[in-house]
Amino acid sequence: MRDTGGVTVLHDARTRDFASDNYAGAHPEVLEAIVAANGGHQGAYGADAYTEALQDVMRGHFGPEAVTFPVFNGTGANVVALQAMLPRWGAVICTTTAHVHVDEGGAPERVGGTKLLPVPTEDGKLTPELVDREAWGFGDEHRAQPAVVAITQSTELGTRYEPAEIKELVEHAHSLGMKVYVDGARLANAAAGLGVGLGETTTALGVDVVGLGGTKNGLLGAEAIVVANPELAEAITYLRKADMQLGSKMRFLSAQLLALFSGDLWLRSAQHANAMAARLRAGVEGLEGVHVTQATQANAVFATLPEGVADRLRERFRFYDWDAARREVRWMCSFDTTPGDVDEFVGALTEVLAAR
Amino acid sequence: MRDTGGVTVLHDARTRDFASDNYAGAHPEVLEAIVAANGGHQGAYGADAYTEALQDVMRGHFGPEAVTFPVFNGTGANVVALQAMLPRWGAVICTTTAHVHVDEGGAPERVGGTKLLPVPTEDGKLTPELVDREAWGFGDEHRAQPAVVAITQSTELGTRYEPAEIKELVEHAHSLGMKVYVDGARLANAAAGLGVGLGETTTALGVDVVGLGGTKNGLLGAEAIVVANPELAEAITYLRKADMQLGSKMRFLSAQLLALFSGDLWLRSAQHANAMAARLRAGVEGLEGVHVTQATQANAVFATLPEGVADRLRERFRFYDWDAARREVRWMCSFDTTPGDVDEFVGALTEVLAAR
Amino acid sequence: MRDTGGVTVLHDARTRDFASDNYAGAHPEVLEAIVAANGGHQGAYGADAYTEALQDVMRGHFGPEAVTFPVFNGTGANVVALQAMLPRWGAVICTTTAHVHVDEGGAPERVGGTKLLPVPTEDGKLTPELVDREAWGFGDEHRAQPAVVAITQSTELGTRYEPAEIKELVEHAHSLGMKVYVDGARLANAAAGLGVGLGETTTALGVDVVGLGGTKNGLLGAEAIVVANPELAEAITYLRKADMQLGSKMRFLSAQLLALFSGDLWLRSAQHANAMAARLRAGVEGLEGVHVTQATQANAVFATLPEGVADRLRERFRFYDWDAARREVRWMCSFDTTPGDVDEFVGALTEVLAAR
Amino acid sequence: MRDTGGVTVLHDARTRDFASDNYAGAHPEVLEAIVAANGGHQGAYGADAYTEALQDVMRGHFGPEAVTFPVFNGTGANVVALQAMLPRWGAVICTTTAHVHVDEGGAPERVGGTKLLPVPTEDGKLTPELVDREAWGFGDEHRAQPAVVAITQSTELGTRYEPAEIKELVEHAHSLGMKVYVDGARLANAAAGLGVGLGETTTALGVDVVGLGGTKNGLLGAEAIVVANPELAEAITYLRKADMQLGSKMRFLSAQLLALFSGDLWLRSAQHANAMAARLRAGVEGLEGVHVTQATQANAVFATLPEGVADRLRERFRFYDWDAARREVRWMCSFDTTPGDVDEFVGALTEVLAAR
Repeated sequence: MRDTGGVTVLHDARTRDFASDNYAGAHPEVLEAIVAANGGHQGAYGADAYTEALQDVMRGHFGPEAVTFPVFNGTGANVVALQAMLPRWGAVICTTTAHVHVDEGGAPERVGGTKLLPVPTEDGKLTPELVDREAWGFGDEHRAQPAVVAITQSTELGTRYEPAEIKELVEHAHSLGMKVYVDGARLANAAAGLGVGLGETTTALGVDVVGLGGTKNGLLGAEAIVVANPELAEAITYLRKADMQLGSKMRFLSAQLLALFSGDLWLRSAQHANAMAARLRAGVEGLEGVHVTQATQANAVFATLPEGVADRLRERFRFYDWDAARREVRWMCSFDTTPGDVDEFVGALTEVLAAR
Repeated sequence: MRDTGGVTVLHDARTRDFASDNYAGAHPEVLEAIVAANGGHQGAYGADAYTEALQDVMRGHFGPEAVTFPVFNGTGANVVALQAMLPRWGAVICTTTAHVHVDEGGAPERVGGTKLLPVPTEDGKLTPELVDREAWGFGDEHRAQPAVVAITQSTELGTRYEPAEIKELVEHAHSLGMKVYVDGARLANAAAGLGVGLGETTTALGVDVVGLGGTKNGLLGAEAIVVANPELAEAITYLRKADMQLGSKMRFLSAQLLALFSGDLWLRSAQHANAMAARLRAGVEGLEGVHVTQATQANAVFATLPEGVADRLRERFRFYDWDAARREVRWMCSFDTTPGDVDEFVGALTEVLAAR
Repeated sequence: MRDTGGVTVLHDARTRDFASDNYAGAHPEVLEAIVAANGGHQGAYGADAYTEALQDVMRGHFGPEAVTFPVFNGTGANVVALQAMLPRWGAVICTTTAHVHVDEGGAPERVGGTKLLPVPTEDGKLTPELVDREAWGFGDEHRAQPAVVAITQSTELGTRYEPAEIKELVEHAHSLGMKVYVDGARLANAAAGLGVGLGETTTALGVDVVGLGGTKNGLLGAEAIVVANPELAEAITYLRKADMQLGSKMRFLSAQLLALFSGDLWLRSAQHANAMAARLRAGVEGLEGVHVTQATQANAVFATLPEGVADRLRERFRFYDWDAARREVRWMCSFDTTPGDVDEFVGALTEVLAAR
Repeated sequence: MRDTGGVTVLHDARTRDFASDNYAGAHPEVLEAIVAANGGHQGAYGADAYTEALQDVMRGHFGPEAVTFPVFNGTGANVVALQAMLPRWGAVICTTTAHVHVDEGGAPERVGGTKLLPVPTEDGKLTPELVDREAWGFGDEHRAQPAVVAITQSTELGTRYEPAEIKELVEHAHSLGMKVYVDGARLANAAAGLGVGLGETTTALGVDVVGLGGTKNGLLGAEAIVVANPELAEAITYLRKADMQLGSKMRFLSAQLLALFSGDLWLRSAQHANAMAARLRAGVEGLEGVHVTQATQANAVFATLPEGVADRLRERFRFYDWDAARREVRWMCSFDTTPGDVDEFVGALTEVLAAR
């Protein structure tokens, strides 16, 4: 613990892990934006100049009709958006690895009463054929009615959809009367990797609603629901409140989102994180006993390791098991991962492998 | 709009209103604490040094067994806490003016499936007698079982409970097998007014769970659920996640709470806001046509005004109608309200009254 | 216990109480209808000849567009109907004595996530003025949006609305963009008392949805949701299933409803029960110490009694306290209450009063 | 339509289908029991002589501590039971073919907020190994906590668990701190096939709660939740009401259950239905183009048919597709299926096959 001008610092700011892009802090430009938004009185609950400005910025990304709702976190964005998109008897087709299915403590079911229809995939990506495994029983009151296809871009497995793949999914879903939701907690990483804009991989392809991530890309904590079609705006307005995602001093959420999305910070940070993941993959790919299990198309590397290696490596760097049964681990890079961090990590892994 | 070192400022930082303590921004010490907590990697979802330190600080306030859960907002604190305290068939006795009943968009009912049993009061305060109006039907499956008494300290009407009043309520509730929850969105204002500590008006009197406010007292946005009895900790752990109130970069929520509660910032800010409300009351009390309707025991003043006065005054200062039918308005002071602001406001009101 | 042809009878079929119209059994014509509907195979879940025939019968009562959904019980009818009528952020204005508020174990809140806004009344009846006490805050996301006015006809206090009163309520509600629901658990008693048809006191006046009671009027157990406007039919179709109110062998629910509503059994039974309540009121009204507290406009009599009298009377007849604090009791008559039962009861009360 | 003594019969009582045991009506002994329970007044909501007697009868089947709760339907039994067995953050491991997952319109999620963790199986039966695919993440707040293993006996695929298999599942679940629920909509068919009592395949093996079916075995409409451990009785008491499954004239539900379970009617009817399914299987097994896809261990036969055959056969008998994509159909037998019905059906199938 050290003391800097009356403020107590409790952690070592040099630590860098590969556990999650949530382990990173906030980008300095984000903190500056918060400071700039401070002072004086501003209307609460979104009636402020920053939230107003955010609407225009987001329309630049997602189209002239887009309406943007800042929320606190990704689970909040997902649950509010899905509830707004579903009739009370609707169901969501998603992958068995979808964050909404495995990592949200059952929030969609508990808060939204939402039925999930999870489909197994190889790479975290749905296709029209996979959607069809659960897209049936329309009109049958015994079956929760499939009403939304939810995909994650980039996926929980570090892969990403090509725009053409999303377009095909959207057309298929719409032809069945279903809407499409994109969990974009790491949308910036996908867009950066594809070399396209945020809207070009979502709303421009017909996606109905986007849960736009900010926290994993260098914010303190802010996400947004973006609806392409203002028809859903009324539902989201009320549901965001009832689902406890309406921030009172919203100017500070909006200021963060402005810092990220009004210029190119979202792109710079995502490109960097992706590049670090690519460097990491390149560094570990040749190592004996290491098998990379997924394409590296965003900021994550998935690999299987020989027995005991993960735990020994964790003595120096934190990261998570993905599928302990098959000794698969996940390594995440973030906006503040440095080439030196990656090289150090690869070196440590090399040492642990050699020491077996 | 002006530009300060590359960062865009969109608002006039000199504006001061009397609408809500949520219109104010963040105290500078809070921003410093956030900056200090930044940098490097810290475990997500509470596995960080700041959240750990917060536990000890809160035990200093609320007792050696207290467990503290940072959350995003007050509605989140209320809903998670009440859900954790209730069996699925339980009900909450509260006032008809309680924030959980009138200002949360039905979140307790929608998210928690919680039945509220609201009781009318004169001053926003429950008594054992008022509790008894709804505390009946125990054991009858047709009646949602009264299981929690929820009070607000200080109340939505700017009044506060004496410690002896809370003690009596707690004893009464406990004797009926009910628990007591304190919505403490403005607990600091009550404690400051009473000249006691935060625990002395809650957990030390037997209160089971406290929703501890921070945002209305100068944070960017952070609240906490504090349980006196660790038995409820498991439920809150899971419910905070499922109710979408688990922050990923929690260090930034905890750093804010540490800035407020590790020293005396909470007390300084609350005392100041209370003093400004007292000054405001003193200033308006003699004015003809102004009738102050509630005791001023925290940072709010409630008054009725002659017809048309509120709207004309709002041309210069924003504030809310409380009960439009009887021309009652609410004026809130905050940590950043200055004596000059108050005097200017009283002056404006005097002018408007004179101009009738 | 006596044995009749291999079947065991466990109760004394001569017992008659004044506790509830639910204490009575089924009318013999209802049992005959069930027997007639038995045998062979019929489509499940409503795809049967009896449910089909019921649609026409109900259109005769409630209008040519009416769609009818048999359900198991009154709570089910209320919850399914209200859910179908409300957006997820909607609220229901009802009386503080409404069955949905006090007698359903919180089902509307728990199953439907429904916010209730209860208003105190003198006689269990809402008026436009009483509705306005809660019909405000439209468009404000912090307020659960008032979307349905729910009334009970006849009321929980044994009173009934005049058609003109309902018409006025409907017009007021509709002018505010709200719908009107009638909890008609005892609609037959109201219609019989008014001398009008079932539709004349509901859908013909603009009521949007009716929960039509059967069980309290001599069925084994069956109720129906009747929607005047087929637009709501889709929602009810799915919600009835998800809310666990879709009977598989629905022919037996529909056969009961046909027995009651295809001829005049509903009217005969309700007229009789009402007449017995009138006889009871006439019998007790002059007794010293007995104060009848509500108009007797259906099949219930409410009265206050001298201390100790209720308990002594209950040694011979079962009935419920209504408001124990003021020694108010409720006496219900049913289709099988006889004049002799009433006279015996009045005699017993007279004796108990005399013996004080 | 024909008229019998004033009562209208709308259907042809000679029709017999192979669609569902819900297409059948009620056993005559059940109707007699309802008639016997009629007349006079009985306490509502379970305070009657029939519900009391049912407790003892069920203790004879399920053990001396068993507590029995009559409910309206199977979805109701499943949802109330699972809610009572789960903490608010709990999840249920079931098969992907489980009725709770595919045929209840999302009721567990919508009414109970319950998260389901479905596991694919070959034959509708879970094993400890299959349970382990989802029984992980205990203590991790991000994961809905696996808390109940739900199996169906006999299964939705017409198969059944051996008692030893259930015992193994129970031991495995209990060793992980999970409870076991049996959806026993067709428990009688399983027990009859195994030649054991109802408790011998459930509570005697450690099963915690049973949803005991009656409707599919010849009742008008009645099911029961049976808890082996009275600790859960309080939760079920309140949840049955809040979940709208508390019948007011419960004597008629209990009388049906008494008719079925106080003697051997449950066994006779189930044995008969099973025998008819065995006869049906024997009749179709040799037919060219017919491939029976599941073991026939209860009252259902599953088979694939050549293209077009199912639809032509349905011109004479109703039955459901099970998996249209692979041309798999389901044929159900019930208590009233006769050997002649089966032979006629096999004959019709033979004709359709020959006519290709």
